[in-house]
Formats: sequence, structure tokens, C-alpha cells
Amino acid sequence: MMSQFPKQHVQMLKDYFSLLRFPSIATDPFHASDVRACADWLVAWMKQRGLAVELWESAGAPTLFATHLKAGPSCDTVLFYAHYDVQPVDPLELWTTPPFEPTLREGSIYARGASDDKGQCFYMLCAITDFLRIHGHFPVNIKILIEGEEESGSRSLTSLLPSKTKELEADHLLIVDSSLEAIHLPSITLGARGIVTMTVTLQEGQRDLHSGLCGGLAANPNRALVALLAKCYDDQGGVAIPGFYDAIVPPTTEERSTLSNTFDVEEFKKNFGFAPQGMEQGVDPLTANWFRPTLEINGMHGGYSGPGFKTVIPAQASAKLSCRLVPQQQPEHVLHCVIQFLRTHTPLHMRLTVDVHPGHAPGFRCSPQSKIATLASQSYTDVFGAPCKHILTGGSIPIVPQLMKAAGAETVLIGTALPTNCIHAPNEHFSLTSFIKGYEVISRILERFIVI
Amino acid sequence: MMSQFPKQHVQMLKDYFSLLRFPSIATDPFHASDVRACADWLVAWMKQRGLAVELWESAGAPTLFATHLKAGPSCDTVLFYAHYDVQPVDPLELWTTPPFEPTLREGSIYARGASDDKGQCFYMLCAITDFLRIHGHFPVNIKILIEGEEESGSRSLTSLLPSKTKELEADHLLIVDSSLEAIHLPSITLGARGIVTMTVTLQEGQRDLHSGLCGGLAANPNRALVALLAKCYDDQGGVAIPGFYDAIVPPTTEERSTLSNTFDVEEFKKNFGFAPQGMEQGVDPLTANWFRPTLEINGMHGGYSGPGFKTVIPAQASAKLSCRLVPQQQPEHVLHCVIQFLRTHTPLHMRLTVDVHPGHAPGFRCSPQSKIATLASQSYTDVFGAPCKHILTGGSIPIVPQLMKAAGAETVLIGTALPTNCIHAPNEHFSLTSFIKGYEVISRILERFIVI
Repeated sequence: MMSQFPKQHVQMLKDYFSLLRFPSIATDPFHASDVRACADWLVAWMKQRGLAVELWESAGAPTLFATHLKAGPSCDTVLFYAHYDVQPVDPLELWTTPPFEPTLREGSIYARGASDDKGQCFYMLCAITDFLRIHGHFPVNIKILIEGEEESGSRSLTSLLPSKTKELEADHLLIVDSSLEAIHLPSITLGARGIVTMTVTLQEGQRDLHSGLCGGLAANPNRALVALLAKCYDDQGGVAIPGFYDAIVPPTTEERSTLSNTFDVEEFKKNFGFAPQGMEQGVDPLTANWFRPTLEINGMHGGYSGPGFKTVIPAQASAKLSCRLVPQQQPEHVLHCVIQFLRTHTPLHMRLTVDVHPGHAPGFRCSPQSKIATLASQSYTDVFGAPCKHILTGGSIPIVPQLMKAAGAETVLIGTALPTNCIHAPNEHFSLTSFIKGYEVISRILERFIVI
Repeated sequence: MMSQFPKQHVQMLKDYFSLLRFPSIATDPFHASDVRACADWLVAWMKQRGLAVELWESAGAPTLFATHLKAGPSCDTVLFYAHYDVQPVDPLELWTTPPFEPTLREGSIYARGASDDKGQCFYMLCAITDFLRIHGHFPVNIKILIEGEEESGSRSLTSLLPSKTKELEADHLLIVDSSLEAIHLPSITLGARGIVTMTVTLQEGQRDLHSGLCGGLAANPNRALVALLAKCYDDQGGVAIPGFYDAIVPPTTEERSTLSNTFDVEEFKKNFGFAPQGMEQGVDPLTANWFRPTLEINGMHGGYSGPGFKTVIPAQASAKLSCRLVPQQQPEHVLHCVIQFLRTHTPLHMRLTVDVHPGHAPGFRCSPQSKIATLASQSYTDVFGAPCKHILTGGSIPIVPQLMKAAGAETVLIGTALPTNCIHAPNEHFSLTSFIKGYEVISRILERFIVI
């Protein structure tokens, strides 16, 4: 299978596999040493290829900062961002091959992080260091920031930013963690939704009870939780929490005109096996995903869910909730509204706890007219031989707004991941084609800086 | 600690511990060989003490049938019933000592099954075989039925019953799997609620999705499940499913007059740490637990519930539901009503599956005037030195109505378990006092048959 890959790049693929083998799940304390081993491996790899590398320590996963600044003060500075941490892997039984044993089949690499974001991080690093090897120098000053907690809220990088504004100062910021709508549709991403996440728990008593002996007597936290969560939604598919939609304004005609206007329902159905049905009434899919906030129940657990049956009334039930936010929404305000609503509607005799997770962030927009947006757009058009579209993403990269501010840079989000890559899910993968296209896009952006 | 126990009974306690060490969780196929080992141990124990024992094979856990029929056809026949299977043990982390390493502390034995029903089964066997050892014979013919699937629906015993009516024929049936309201309040149980159980799953698509990239587009099965389950309940704390309460009539004055009329709210609060809040509006606790059906969500699971956070829209969400039924309710009718309601209210684009578990059963009542009810009542009064009350239980022993019919016997449910024994929950335990009282009650019932 490796014969598909340009011969000189077999070593690149081997190194990519090495990177994927680290179970760098930063959200799980159990994997702290794996996260560090992964960071150390990346530091060594980058140093060996001519970059100066710093490892920024903090309470959590280390942050990597690599530079090549020989272009000098008269040249522009480009800051690249990616992350080396990955999502948890459960349900493990649904993986065809183990998540940390990368496997190449049918032209794609299967592994946790194959796409998000080790795959994209690594083609970026390969393209940058190959450019240096081939040309001997860069047309711009290069800064590379690789964090280890993107999937769990970027707490470490957030704490580091105030003291690192000098280091991170740049003219252009390229966030290499985005995706295309399809492999034949080049695009750059000019905005993302924000996010807040929380774990909500309802508790009554200290232990599970027998559902016969106590049934009809003890209030059931599972039942209270479904009642509470059901109340959060209205009959039109929207969120019923007062204040949730405060301050939201529809996109202007001007904003819409700079953005792609197509949502391919058939492509969605082909990709996921069902039609999009999650929109509020009267809202089209593209608007729903780009311009409307959501409240999702990402996880829910209470009582017995193993094989067979167990007749308990559980002592507690909990849910993991997240909101995706559009730029006008303040994360703190949305959190306040949600928590206030949950408190108001929790039965008096039950104990509600809301554990807000770190890393909430607002949505953001990037200018479509910036130099980096133009260069990136042209580079995609060059590599794909098709006009590059401007899109938004319904996803979130919480650190980006802070990073944009710290670097003081015009920003654009790029990448060659696809909606079908199963990121955050079992059997995550990344095609060799995506990897090569991503590599070529980064190379082309660097080349275009020479032309300027 | 063993010094509290009558010296001649130390071996009894050792054997009780041996019985508790088998992880006989019949609902979990993983434990099939443990279930069998437990059955084999019981067979050997009973044979050694002079009983004739048959092991009835079926597709599932073996059923044990022991007899001592030398009293002859002119004497009454008593059929004892108990079970040797136990409930699953999760959440395992909440056990102070491992569930299958029985531990004696503060006068109680802690282990899964210590009370339900290995503890009660074992004091029954000890009392019966000690009676034989001491007296050399029984005043009645003895039949003992010990099944291995009570906690998972008694499928094997149900399938065996039609071919075993001759073997099971008896005048009196003692179900040794019941409890007292408190250790100073002797009682016999004259009825139980029925039960139906099912697992309900909502599915959309084949894999978990990214809640950003697909948020607002893909309908979330967790959200659909909470909406669906919330609809099952009305605003008065009752069940909103049409037909659910069909045929239910309040208890007659006559029935109530034969039954205990006290529910001790303070005792409940002391036992469980909270006041009973699960009743329908205007329904008192005793009525709620004895004379009203319930619909409980015993388990609920969808998406990620591990440490940290995972931003998925899960492909599916599921809940384990059970209904406790009063005698007038037909299990099949209730099942039909629930499933029909779930189907009607499931969004068209979601796939609903309802997996009905085996072992549904109606509620039942026993006569308070029968000879065995009288004898058992007198025996409790003798042993406890306090008048024996007649009670019902909110729990279910699904096999009992079928067994009453197969044996053609007057029936009463007995036991010395307590509501505080954490049955079906972590840290299940049984006090030495309960064990000894149970042993004495069985002995006393056998002695009272001599007096007659």
C-alpha cells in the first residue's frame, strides 16, 4: 500500500505512524505520561529538522513552540497552530483496528488522531521542514505553536498566553485544524462557533435502591433528569431556556455574500446515512450549523446499563451538556442562563450539581479580505485546480479567539480533513490523498510568500 | 466477631461464606460457570445432610430440587422456595469490601447475595437440615426448590414448570425471599407487585458524530430519548401512557383491614436519608408502594459519560424501563400500552427498538386465612415476642404466581431481610441477628407442624 505514496516520503509516513501510536488523551489523567512522551517525540523530530524548539511547561500537557526566524524583521511572520492531543477512544469495541495501532487500508490511515489533529499537524510540519531542506531558508519568519489540550479546553495554553505575547507576535495566523466539505471542494474557514461544556448531576440519597421495595416512594433521579432536560427544548426544535438566544443577530447580506451558500443534503445523507433533521423549524441546514447556537446532550448516564436488567432506582443520574455559540453570544451569559434554568426546574428535594468544564470560548470571525486569507485561498485553488470557497464551521477551536488576540495576527483556518473522517468517533481515519493535499497546500502557501 | 454466633453454628457461618463467594450473576453470560459451580456446591451440601437432590437442567442456570418425603402421604407437604442467583454488582467502586469476598463487620455479613437471597436460602436450608439432624424425621413432607434465575426473570424454571407439576405438588408454599419493615416488627407478606422490564433504544445513523460539525444538523438520540421518556409522565407524578392504569381498583375495606396500616415516614428517612417524594399527588406512601403501579427508568445511557468531556452526538441512546404492576393489571396489556406509546411518540426519522426482557409477571395476593399463613404468623410472633403483622411488598417475585398454580398450594412469603440491607445495591449485607431470626422462624414453623 505504501507504494501509492511518493517514494521519498515513506519515512514521512513511518514517522506519522509513530506519532499516532502515542495515546495522547490529555483529558484523561491516566494518559499524562503518554501525552508527555508524544510531546518529547515531536520536540526531537522538529529539532532534528532545523527548528529551534521550546517546551512550555504548565500544570497540564506541555505546549510546544518551534521557530525559524532567519528571514529577519523586514519579512512577515507566520504563526502556525495545531495540536497533538486526541479525543478519548470509547466505545472501543466499535473500532475495526485498535485506535493506537495505526493501520493503512484502502488508501486511508485508521487511528485516533489520524485526522484530528495529528494528521494535519504532521503534514504541516513535514511541509514546513521539507521547504527548509529544499530551499535552505524561508521567505517569512516561521513560528509553530502545537498545544496538548485542545480537546479538553486548552487550559495550559490559556494560562501561558499572557506571558507569551512577544513570542507569539505574528502578522499571519494559520490554524491547521479545519476541514473541507468534500475532497474535491477546496475551502478556507473564516469562523467557528464557540463552546461551553458542563456535567449536570441530580442526586437523591446516597445509594441505589430496589425499584420494587422503594418504587412509588423514592423519586427517581433518572426520571427527574429526563424531565429537566426535556424542559430545555421547545416544540419547534429550539432551546427553551430564557436568555439563551439573547443578542443573536442574523448574518448580514454582506457576510453571506462572502461565504459559500450551498449545503448538499444528498452529500450529507451519503456521508451519514440519514437526512439532517436537527434544525429548528424553518431554519435551513447551513444556517443551523453556522449561524445558530445548539444545546446538545453529549452524554447521559444513570443506573444500570449493562447486559440483562437490574431493578434499581439509582442514587444519581448525570448528563454532559454542551452549547455551541455564535459570535454575539457571551459564554458566561449562556452558562448563567442554562444553570439558572436547571436550578429553577430541579425538584426541591433533589440535589443539583453543575460542573462547568474549563475552556469555554466565544465564536469568532476572520476577515475574508486579509492577505493570509487571499494567499491561502489562492494556494487551495492552485493545489485542487478548483475555485476555493469561503466557509464557516459549526465546530469550535476555543483557543483561536485568544490566540488571534495574543498574536495580533490576521487569521484563517485551514485543513484537508473531511466530515466523513469519523473524528471524535470510532474508526477515525485520514486518507493519503488528504494528507498529500494538506502537505501541498502548506508548501504552496510558503511558495506564494516568495512570489509576493 | 464469630463469638457472637452460637458455637455449634460456626461451621454454618463458614458454609454461608463459601456460598457467598460464588459470583452467581445469572443475568451475565460471563458468569455462567460460576452459576453452575454455585449450584453444584449447594447440591453437595444438601445431599451430605440427608436430602435427596435433583438438578433440573434447562437452557439457563440449573434449578435445584431437594426432597425428604418420609412423612408419607397422610401428612401435609411443604414446598420451600429460594434462589441462589444474585444481582450484578456495579458500581463496583462503591463497595467497601469486594462483593464476592464476604466480610463480617459490626455484626453483619457484607457480600452480594448476603441477604437476597443466598442468606435467606441458607438459613432456611440450615434450619431444615438441623431439624432433621435433631429430630431424625419431619412432621411433614419437605420439598425445596432453589432456582438460579430469579433476578433475571426465572426463564428456566418457567420452562420447567409444566413438566414438574407432580414433583412440585404441595399443600403449603413458603417463599423465603421477603423482608420485614424493621427487625423488631415481625410480619409475613401476603402479596407482591408484578413486573415487566424492557430496554428501549433510539438510533439515528451508525456512528457517533462530532457535535460541532454536525450540531444543528443531526438530530440527537439523547435529546429524543429524554423527550420521549418525559412524555411518559404527567404533571401529577403519575404515568401518562393511555391504558396504563386500566382495570385498577382500589383495595377493598376488607382487604385493607387484614393488612398493616402503618407507614413510618421517619423510619424511611432514617433508612434512606430522604423523605418519600415519589408518590403520585394525593397518594399516601403505603398505597403508592402496595396498591399503585410504577414506571421506572432503571438505567439510561447514551454518548460519553467518562472523565472529562467528549463532544459527540451519539448514534444511539437507550434506557432500561420497568413497570411494577398491581394484581388487576395484565402484564401483556401494560407492555402493549407502553410500547404503543413509545412508537407513537418516536420521531419518524429515528429507529426505535424495544427489547422486552423475559420474566414478566402479574401481581398476586395470598389468603390471610390459610393454614400456612396462620402457622407462619404464629411462628413469627413466637420468635420475635411481638404480634406478627400482615403486609404486602412493592417488590416482585415473578415466579410466585406460576409456582402457586403449579404446586396448587396456599402460599405465604417470609423472610427476615430489612429495607436497609442494600439489596440490589453496593454494600449489600445481612445481620447475624437477621440470619438467626430467620433460622428460628423456619425451625418454629416446622415445630408448629408437630403441634398440629
